[in-house]
Amino acid sequence: MAAEETKVLQEAYPMKGGDGLYSYAKNSTYQRKATGYAKELIKAAIAGKLDKEILLSSKTFRIADLGCSVGPNTFSAVQNILEAVESKYQYYCQELNPQIPDFQVFFNDHTSNDFNLLFTSLPNDRGYYAAGVPGSFYGRLFPENSIHFVHSSYAIQWLSGVPKELVNKNSPAWNKGRIHYSSSGDEVVMAYKAQFDKDMEQFLQARAQEIVCGGLMVLIFPGIPNGTHHSQNQPSINFEILGSCLMDLARKGMISEEKVDSFNIPTYNMSPQELEAAVERNGCFSIEGKENLPLSVQSDSGDQNISGQFVESHLRAVVEGIIKQHFGEKILDVLFDCYRRKLHENFSIFESGKMGSFFFLLKRRAAN
Amino acid sequence: MAAEETKVLQEAYPMKGGDGLYSYAKNSTYQRKATGYAKELIKAAIAGKLDKEILLSSKTFRIADLGCSVGPNTFSAVQNILEAVESKYQYYCQELNPQIPDFQVFFNDHTSNDFNLLFTSLPNDRGYYAAGVPGSFYGRLFPENSIHFVHSSYAIQWLSGVPKELVNKNSPAWNKGRIHYSSSGDEVVMAYKAQFDKDMEQFLQARAQEIVCGGLMVLIFPGIPNGTHHSQNQPSINFEILGSCLMDLARKGMISEEKVDSFNIPTYNMSPQELEAAVERNGCFSIEGKENLPLSVQSDSGDQNISGQFVESHLRAVVEGIIKQHFGEKILDVLFDCYRRKLHENFSIFESGKMGSFFFLLKRRAAN
Repeated sequence: MAAEETKVLQEAYPMKGGDGLYSYAKNSTYQRKATGYAKELIKAAIAGKLDKEILLSSKTFRIADLGCSVGPNTFSAVQNILEAVESKYQYYCQELNPQIPDFQVFFNDHTSNDFNLLFTSLPNDRGYYAAGVPGSFYGRLFPENSIHFVHSSYAIQWLSGVPKELVNKNSPAWNKGRIHYSSSGDEVVMAYKAQFDKDMEQFLQARAQEIVCGGLMVLIFPGIPNGTHHSQNQPSINFEILGSCLMDLARKGMISEEKVDSFNIPTYNMSPQELEAAVERNGCFSIEGKENLPLSVQSDSGDQNISGQFVESHLRAVVEGIIKQHFGEKILDVLFDCYRRKLHENFSIFESGKMGSFFFLLKRRAAN
Repeated sequence: MAAEETKVLQEAYPMKGGDGLYSYAKNSTYQRKATGYAKELIKAAIAGKLDKEILLSSKTFRIADLGCSVGPNTFSAVQNILEAVESKYQYYCQELNPQIPDFQVFFNDHTSNDFNLLFTSLPNDRGYYAAGVPGSFYGRLFPENSIHFVHSSYAIQWLSGVPKELVNKNSPAWNKGRIHYSSSGDEVVMAYKAQFDKDMEQFLQARAQEIVCGGLMVLIFPGIPNGTHHSQNQPSINFEILGSCLMDLARKGMISEEKVDSFNIPTYNMSPQELEAAVERNGCFSIEGKENLPLSVQSDSGDQNISGQFVESHLRAVVEGIIKQHFGEKILDVLFDCYRRKLHENFSIFESGKMGSFFFLLKRRAAN
C-alpha cells in the first residue's frame, strides 16, 4: 500500500522549477542529449524485447516516468516510447485486435516537484491520458501489476537521503568540510555505497511489485566506468569544487563551518557493475541490455566543447534547490561565482575525472 | 484519446488556492457539509448497488474525484468511498479472494488548479495510490473502461465556458449589465440552458467510456428544486447582487461598463429533472438513487444561522479567481465590501430564493 512510502526516508531535491535563467527546464540539455541517444535504444528495446502478449493483455498500456522533473525531456521520452509501442502494435497485433490500446502515462517525482508547471507544459496534442504521481520512487507508487513500461532518466543517482553517518561527529564516516566523497576516506565512500545498495534494493522491490510480468524498465543514469577509483569520480570532483567554495564562504564568515559539515549531496554515481549486482541480488528482473551512452556534450549554442559556463549552469539547475534549502538564498550568487572561477582554474583535474552515461534495459521476470 | 479534450471549449475557474483568509481550503465548509450528508448515502450506495463482480474483476479498484480542488473535502470523500468498498469486500468477497484490491485514486481538476498544494496536503496514512489528473471533465480524462467509481461534488454546476451569445452585442441573448441569469430575459436563460445540455452530454459520454460496466458515479451539486422559476434561483440571485456591485464600480469609473458586459459567470444551477433528462438522453447510465441533501448550513463557529459574512466568504473563495482574471486584482476588496453591504440590505430577497443540494447515484449500464 502507498502507506509504505511514508516509512521510507524521504528527502526531496527537486530540480529548479519555473523557466528562468537557471531553471532545470532551460538547463537540462545534457540530460536531454542522453535521452536523445537513448531514444534509438528504447525503440530497439520495444521492437525486440516487448512481448506481444503484453500488448494484447490489456486495453490500456501504462507508462511511468520516474523522476520526471518538469519537462520538456520527460515529454519527448514518453512520446518516443508511445510511438515505438504503437508501431509494434500495428505490425504484430493489429490483425489479432484492431484497437490500439489507450495509453496512460504517470509522471512521477517528489511531492515538492513543480507539478503545476509540469501540467501546464503537457503537450496539447498528446496521444495519452496524463497523470501526475507525487512521491519517492524508493517506495511504492502504483498498484500491483499495473505498469507495462517504466522509464527513468538521470534520477536514480539521487539517494533517498544523506547517509546518517556522514553528519555524525562520532562516526568514522563523518564527512567534515566536504559535501561529497571523491576526496573523502573509505568510510565515507562505504557509507554512500551502503545507502545506494539499500535504496536500490527498495527501488527494485517496489518496481517488481508494480510492473507486470514481461514489462520493461529502462534506466538511464550518470555514473562511472567499472573499476574507476572514487578519487577519479568526475561528478563527485565537481561537487567537491563546489564544497571547497562553501568552505571559502565559511572562512569568510558568510556561513558557519558546522553548516558545511552538516551538508552532503545525496547522490551516488554507480558503475554499471554495481547496478548489475543490485539487479542480480534482487532477482526479479533480467538484464536485457546495457550500453554506454556517448558523452558528446554540447551547449545550447551548438558549441561542441564543454565549457565551464555550461557545466556551471547545469550544476546550478540541479543543486540550487538543495543548497538554498540548507544555506538560504543569499549565498547563491557568490557561491556559484566562486564555483565557476575554481572550475576554470581546475578544469584539467575536472576533465581528468571519469564519468559515463549508462543505459540499462530490464525485464520483469515471471512471478517469483 | 486525450487529444479530444483539447477540442472541448476549455476555460478554467480554479477555486482560490493557498490557505489564506479567503482560500477555498478555509471556505468550503458548506461544500464539506454537503459531502458529509452525502457520506451516508455513498456508503449505502456501495453496500447496496456496487456489484460483487466489479470488486472481483480487477486487482485495482480505481476511484476518480472530478473537480477535486485542493482539499480537504476531496480527501474525506475519497476515504469514505474507500472504507465502504473495503467493508463490502471483506463481507462479500474475501472468501472468494482474500486479497483486498489495491486502491488507486485520481484527483482531477482543471490544469490551473493548485495541484502542488493538493499533493503536499495528501494524507500521509492514505491507503491508496494517488495521482493527479489535470484537465476539463467535459473531455476524456481516463482510458476506456478503467474507472470503477466516480465522485464529483460541487463541480458539475460549472459549465465548460460562458455561452458565446451572452457577449455578442447582436444576439438577443446579450447579457448587458448582468453577470448571471436570474434577472435576465428568456434568451439568456435559454443560452445558459443550451450550454448546460451540451456540456452534460459531453460529460456523460466521456464518463460512459471511462467507467466499467456496473461502475458507479455519484454526483453532488447545488441546484434548484424542480419547477423553480429562474427569477427565484438563489445562487443566481447571489451572483446578480455581485453583478450590481460591478455595475456600481463601472458607474464610479473604476472599471468600464464594457468589461462588465463581457463578463458572465459560467455556472448553471440545474434542477434534478434537468439532470434526469440528460441522463436519459445519454442512455448509458441508470439512475439508482436521487436525494435532496438537507441544507442546514452552519458557519465554522457552529452558528446555525446563515450569515452574510458566511455567504460572502464562501462566494469569494469560489469566484475570486475568475473575477481577478477578468477585472484584475485591484477591485477585489471594494467589490466584496459592496457585495457584503448589498447582501445585507437584500437578505430577504436572497433568502426568498430557492436552492437545493442534490445527490444522484448513477450506474454504468452494460455496454451499448
